[in-house]
Amino acid sequence: MFPFRVLNRETVEEILDMASVIETVEKAYTLKATGEASLFPLVFHEFERGKADMDIKSGHLAGANIFGLKLVSWFGANSEKGLPQLIGVVMVLDSSTGVPKGILSGEPVTCMRTGAAGGIGAKYLARKDSQHLLMVGSGHQAPFQIMAVLSTMEHIRKVTIYNANSFERADRFAKTIKEKLMEKFVSRYQDQPDYYRMMAERCEIEFVATDDLEAATRTADIIITATPSRAPLIRKEWVRPGTHITCIGADMEGKQEIDENLFAGAKVYVDDVNQAVHVGELEIPIKKGVFRQEEILGEIGQLILGQIPGRTSEEEITIFDSTGIALQDLLTAEHVLKTAEKRGLGSVVDL
Amino acid sequence: MFPFRVLNRETVEEILDMASVIETVEKAYTLKATGEASLFPLVFHEFERGKADMDIKSGHLAGANIFGLKLVSWFGANSEKGLPQLIGVVMVLDSSTGVPKGILSGEPVTCMRTGAAGGIGAKYLARKDSQHLLMVGSGHQAPFQIMAVLSTMEHIRKVTIYNANSFERADRFAKTIKEKLMEKFVSRYQDQPDYYRMMAERCEIEFVATDDLEAATRTADIIITATPSRAPLIRKEWVRPGTHITCIGADMEGKQEIDENLFAGAKVYVDDVNQAVHVGELEIPIKKGVFRQEEILGEIGQLILGQIPGRTSEEEITIFDSTGIALQDLLTAEHVLKTAEKRGLGSVVDL
Repeated sequence: MFPFRVLNRETVEEILDMASVIETVEKAYTLKATGEASLFPLVFHEFERGKADMDIKSGHLAGANIFGLKLVSWFGANSEKGLPQLIGVVMVLDSSTGVPKGILSGEPVTCMRTGAAGGIGAKYLARKDSQHLLMVGSGHQAPFQIMAVLSTMEHIRKVTIYNANSFERADRFAKTIKEKLMEKFVSRYQDQPDYYRMMAERCEIEFVATDDLEAATRTADIIITATPSRAPLIRKEWVRPGTHITCIGADMEGKQEIDENLFAGAKVYVDDVNQAVHVGELEIPIKKGVFRQEEILGEIGQLILGQIPGRTSEEEITIFDSTGIALQDLLTAEHVLKTAEKRGLGSVVDL
Repeated sequence: MFPFRVLNRETVEEILDMASVIETVEKAYTLKATGEASLFPLVFHEFERGKADMDIKSGHLAGANIFGLKLVSWFGANSEKGLPQLIGVVMVLDSSTGVPKGILSGEPVTCMRTGAAGGIGAKYLARKDSQHLLMVGSGHQAPFQIMAVLSTMEHIRKVTIYNANSFERADRFAKTIKEKLMEKFVSRYQDQPDYYRMMAERCEIEFVATDDLEAATRTADIIITATPSRAPLIRKEWVRPGTHITCIGADMEGKQEIDENLFAGAKVYVDDVNQAVHVGELEIPIKKGVFRQEEILGEIGQLILGQIPGRTSEEEITIFDSTGIALQDLLTAEHVLKTAEKRGLGSVVDL
């Protein structure tokens, strides 16, 4: 029998801070690039088309001595039952013995590691002097994206928020996001006064909603899309030279957030080639023949390690197609479990 | 947050009795046959060839309102570390909401449901008057197979045990199995005096080891093979008319326990067609062209429901190729979780 740690959502949220998750996700990306991590095939099942499904993403991080899985289920009708639509768990095991280490609520892990991906995309691909972030989408994921970019980019002065369906929602978001960032993310750093002050200062910027996506795009340095869109929102002619775009929303066939023609001539990076070309933002451009898989410059982990070139001029448009990979979840979960052990958090039971 | 039950090996062993597991596994087979259950694709990963691997088997039992997975890892070097080589966990979730219900030690579930399969094969395919069970293999699984057959077949008078590598081990097994059956299985029934007495009586039979597999085969009514063999042990010419054979051991490519020519002319049933022809005892006969997939009469669940014919004469040879399916694990795990809830066993933590 093995000691097995179980951590609920509150505890996972209490443990995770954006700076650590960014560091952890970078590590996951680089382990993949050095061949010390591998993804297993995805299991996907639809209980009822468009109403309920589940997937099991799994993989092995040899470089961190763990393997495991994340199971996420989505039940659209749950909201009527007072339950979350998305419910996930991550289980981590020791890859030198197969011994299960623990299981934890997947939702905060997913939110944080997805945010971190956006921050890392900006860190390695945006112009260092980027000042204006355009956040396309004002849903659940948007605060995580914004916090991650503020964590990695020191000159952001303005964040514009766009919601394709409702200016009101974007406006409400813009009016409350500063407080939310402070409460949800920055408050974690109170025991590191210098870092706390720095991050608090970075939140003292302009947050504004827009219903004019074209105008916002024309002045943005960094664009992040995190929507469930199935049609391009950002048009090629709106994007100025030097812009960096991270696409977060596309994670299954048919999803698309930006003009497929943007890929032609841009420097394109992915988290996982296979996932990106099949279910990512790259799916449509490749299917339409405006971009070829061979034109992908490489995976973000290779870029972080300097194995492949990144941005080489102030004029290039760079794109990071982030589909989300199990290795991000697993390494983040491992970080959570280790921290919980140190702090004595969660329940340890005999398995 | 959800109440999430965690059950360790001891608790799962305490809960499971063979009669309930046989009933549960029959139910799993029939749900599959009526289309109320489906298997998801298998995930398999070898950490080091021949030394360490893991698999994730998952599926959905709509008829029982659950889905879930079993993750089993095998690390050969664990014995040197004082750890079990095989470590497994089963996780069960509610298939109307996606809410995780619990996780439990997989090893006792696997042992019991695999035993139950052998008992069910005999129940539906062996001659009702079968008296002589030949158990090929005296490893960890053998007691489960024997108990299951004694549970489903009332006329067994003799069990012969064969171990291809060591008569001594078979002999030791034969000399201790009665006591082991009583202690491990029959003692569970003390609160059901009639059933306890009946099962105790069924154990009062002859258990004998042999080093003459041919002679044992020539007098057996039921043969169960549960070995890691990669070459046929049972030869066709030894098997007399009317024999039933259940093959348990073959669960990956290259494994084989019985003469491939036995399939020609036999009535052949499987737990899952796809698994059986790819990784089961049927793999080799089909690859060698002595048997065709179309000749499989059907799945055991269809037989249980009377959708397909079973044995129709005292002379037929019947074969059940049992590869082991996730649905057995999931429904057994659900039974364990429900029982644990009733009895207040295990740890309930907040997930």
